[in-house]
Amino acid sequence: MKEEEIREKVKKALSPSRFAHVEGVVHTAARLAARYGADEQKARLAAWIHDWAREWPVSRLEETAAALGIDRSLFGPVAVLHGPIAAASLEREFGIADDEIADAVRYHTTGRPGMTLLERVVCLADAVEPGRAYPGVDRLRQLARQDLDLALAEMFDATLRDLLDRGRPLAVLTVLARNECWERIRARGAR
Amino acid sequence: MKEEEIREKVKKALSPSRFAHVEGVVHTAARLAARYGADEQKARLAAWIHDWAREWPVSRLEETAAALGIDRSLFGPVAVLHGPIAAASLEREFGIADDEIADAVRYHTTGRPGMTLLERVVCLADAVEPGRAYPGVDRLRQLARQDLDLALAEMFDATLRDLLDRGRPLAVLTVLARNECWERIRARGAR
Repeated sequence: MKEEEIREKVKKALSPSRFAHVEGVVHTAARLAARYGADEQKARLAAWIHDWAREWPVSRLEETAAALGIDRSLFGPVAVLHGPIAAASLEREFGIADDEIADAVRYHTTGRPGMTLLERVVCLADAVEPGRAYPGVDRLRQLARQDLDLALAEMFDATLRDLLDRGRPLAVLTVLARNECWERIRARGAR
Repeated sequence: MKEEEIREKVKKALSPSRFAHVEGVVHTAARLAARYGADEQKARLAAWIHDWAREWPVSRLEETAAALGIDRSLFGPVAVLHGPIAAASLEREFGIADDEIADAVRYHTTGRPGMTLLERVVCLADAVEPGRAYPGVDRLRQLARQDLDLALAEMFDATLRDLLDRGRPLAVLTVLARNECWERIRARGAR
């Protein structure tokens, strides 16, 4: 499927405000990919598709995740399943057979240990695209231009603090991704 | 080994200030055990022994953990190994063959998912014994008298926030223990 067709298919699956967010992520992911040397075209495709299942009702997310054999314990709350579901549907729905794009879609909400450059770019773009508005987003946008690891580390920290404040479960994938970011930053400083 | 002998053996292994902390944990663990219906004698024994290896040098902790086959990835920072090491040494060093006491010693720093009542009592006692002084400890002491689950949940949250603030790794065991505490509290509220 061509990028324009993917865009139209995603547009049909989402509310206008969510689609505007997706357009922001595509733009930002392409910019970050160029900045940090990731594959720009793959970043755009992953960004177009990342929220394709984001507005499905809970029952459809749960049934599809079960049918696809997705490990629920890994991803936590049901809303997070839209990533792994879109990743697992990539070839059937969009004609894309590419593990790098699939993983960038699969882990865009939670992150994971051992994230590829493409995964980091898409995950961060999702958090800092121009439509996002939350305390600290301007600082993250600035960091995103300067230091991918540090921006991701602070983004994960902010996510975890928010979940702590709201008494929500912390995703183990996010905790491990966050620990690894800070470890990489420390190791870099020690060089 | 009798409780008095265990006390003397632990006293020899620790600085006076650390031993005072241990005495505080014994006192508090016994009180919490009585309050919540855990085995008071087991709580006292676990409390006496929990910090036995706490002042070992890093090299000794690392060598002993390796010799005992302790899974480092589970416990994180080297300092946390004093719990699993004391637990694994319980029978040889103290003549105690009791899995419940061993687990209360093993997980007293990190917690874990599926904590027993005894584990929860010892873990919380370690955090709120009278010698502890940190922001929020008075609130935790008050909660500890009223609601074991809630006190533990808030204790884990405070630990995780502190680790986030200091850029230190979050232990997965603590994250899972914390998620479970809040889940139990929510389930209780829904009854």
